[in-house]
Amino acid sequence: MATMRTVSQGLKIALVQNLVGKNKQENIDHSFSLVRKARENGATMISLPECFQSPYGNQYFGEYAETIPGYTTEQLKSLAKELGIYLIGGSIPERDGDKLYNTTTVFNPSGDMILKFRKIHLFDIDIPGKITFLESNTLSSGSKIGYFDTKYCRVGIGICYDIRFPELAMLMNKLGCKVLIYPGCFNMTTGPVHWELLIRARALDNQCYCCAVSQARDDSASYVAWGNSTVCDPWGEVVGKAGSKEEIIYSDIDFERIEMIRNQIPIGKQKRNDIYELKYLS
Amino acid sequence: MATMRTVSQGLKIALVQNLVGKNKQENIDHSFSLVRKARENGATMISLPECFQSPYGNQYFGEYAETIPGYTTEQLKSLAKELGIYLIGGSIPERDGDKLYNTTTVFNPSGDMILKFRKIHLFDIDIPGKITFLESNTLSSGSKIGYFDTKYCRVGIGICYDIRFPELAMLMNKLGCKVLIYPGCFNMTTGPVHWELLIRARALDNQCYCCAVSQARDDSASYVAWGNSTVCDPWGEVVGKAGSKEEIIYSDIDFERIEMIRNQIPIGKQKRNDIYELKYLS
Repeated sequence: MATMRTVSQGLKIALVQNLVGKNKQENIDHSFSLVRKARENGATMISLPECFQSPYGNQYFGEYAETIPGYTTEQLKSLAKELGIYLIGGSIPERDGDKLYNTTTVFNPSGDMILKFRKIHLFDIDIPGKITFLESNTLSSGSKIGYFDTKYCRVGIGICYDIRFPELAMLMNKLGCKVLIYPGCFNMTTGPVHWELLIRARALDNQCYCCAVSQARDDSASYVAWGNSTVCDPWGEVVGKAGSKEEIIYSDIDFERIEMIRNQIPIGKQKRNDIYELKYLS
Repeated sequence: MATMRTVSQGLKIALVQNLVGKNKQENIDHSFSLVRKARENGATMISLPECFQSPYGNQYFGEYAETIPGYTTEQLKSLAKELGIYLIGGSIPERDGDKLYNTTTVFNPSGDMILKFRKIHLFDIDIPGKITFLESNTLSSGSKIGYFDTKYCRVGIGICYDIRFPELAMLMNKLGCKVLIYPGCFNMTTGPVHWELLIRARALDNQCYCCAVSQARDDSASYVAWGNSTVCDPWGEVVGKAGSKEEIIYSDIDFERIEMIRNQIPIGKQKRNDIYELKYLS
C-alpha cells in the first residue's frame, strides 16, 4: 500500500523568502516554484515578500508596476486556484492612473481575489550615512486597513513600514484578526535592531501570531534586504526564523494556544475603554 | 586643592532595585540608604520599585497601606528635599476610605508632591501551575494617566502591569513625555519572556527612554520578583540592566539622541490620523 503524504487540515503558513533579481518573469517563475514546494510540504497559506517580482527601489517601481488586475495578479490567481491555497502575493508596484502604490493582493483556494491592500505608511526615513529612502518620491499611500477572512480565521495585512505603527496591528486585533502578516523588506541598518523586536511586540501586545516575510538578501542590490523572515507566536516568542539566504519557513498556527494565552493574561478584556479608545476612522 | 565630584547637570536617572523584607521601617531605611548612594553617584532623578516598603502580595497590601499624605510619603518628601532630587517613590499600598490602591508618588527637589498616580490596570492573571494572581481581590484601580514636569522634560509613570497596554505609553508620548518610568515587579514566569520585550517595545514605538524598576529577587518570598531593572533608549536598545540581586543602575538621558531618532525615523509625524486616532477620554 502506498504511503500518502499527510496534508495539514489546519492552518500551516509558509513564508517564501525568495531572492529577487531584475528580470520580472524570472522573479515570478522562481518565486512560484518555491510556492509549489511550500504546498508540497503541506502549507495551506503561503506568503510571498514585499516586491516579490521587482527589486525594491524608487528607480524600479514605475518600470515593474502593473494594474490590478493585471499580468502578475492573474498569475497569482491561477496559482492559488491550481494549488488550492490562500496565497498572499507579497506586494507589487501597482499603477492606477498616474499614481503608483505598494500593493498586496490575496487569493483564496478558488482563485478569488479577496483583498487588495495598499501600504498605508510610506517608508520615508533619513539616517545620514546609513540609509535615506523616500518612498513618497514615487508612491502614494493607501487609506484602508487590510484584512481577509478564511475558513481558519481572519488575517490582517500590513506592508513593511506599516509594522512600525502599533495602531494598525491593534485595530486589526480589534477587528478579530488572529494572524498578522507583513510582507516587508527591512534593511541592514534597521533590520538588526528593529525587525524582530517589532514582530515580537505586535504579537505579544495583540496576543496573535505575527509573520513578516522578506526578500532574501542580495548584497549586490541597491537596497540590501535584511532577510530573516520571522513567525512569532502570541506569547511573544519566535517560532520560525529564516536566515539571510533564500529559504521557506513554516509554522502551524495553534488556535488553542491563542485562546489559552488570551484567557491566562486577558489584556484584551482588561483594556480601560473608560480612559482611552483607539478609533478606526475610515 | 581638593578634587570636586562632578554632579551631572543633565538628567541622570538611577533605578534602585532594593531587596524588600517584611519590616516596613527597615525597608524604608534600607531603600533610602540606596537612594543616598545613588545621589552621591550623581543621579538627579531616582526611582524606587513597586512596593518598595511592602512585600508584594494581596496578603500584605492592607497591613502596609497608608494614607497619602502619610508616614511613608512624608519620609519620601523629606528625602527628596534633603538630597535635591526628583524622587519617584516606587509604589506603596494606599488606603483611601475603605479602598486600597497601588500608588506612585513623585516629589521634586523642593519636596513638593508633584504626582500621585494610582495603577490603572490591575494585575489579574491566571496561568495554571505557574502563577495565578488577582490584584482586584484587594485593590481598586486608578483612572487617570500619570505624568509630571521637570526642568529636563515631562516624565510618564505606569505601574507594572500597566506596561502591557500600549495605549498608555502612546498617550503619554502624545502628552509629550520623553521618559517613561514603570515601577514594577514581574515574576519568574512572565519576567524571562515579556519584561525586556515590553520595555523595548514601548521605547521603540514611542521613541523615548523607557525604564522599569523592580524589587530585587527574594527566592523565599511568596511572590518572587524577576528583578532585571532595565533602561531602554529610543532606538529600542537596552542601555542599562540589573541582574536579579540588589543593585542600582544609572542612565544619562540624551535628549539630542531622542530628537535625532525622531527626525531620522519620523513615525510621530507619520501617524495616519485620518485613519485611526487614539483618544484620551479622562
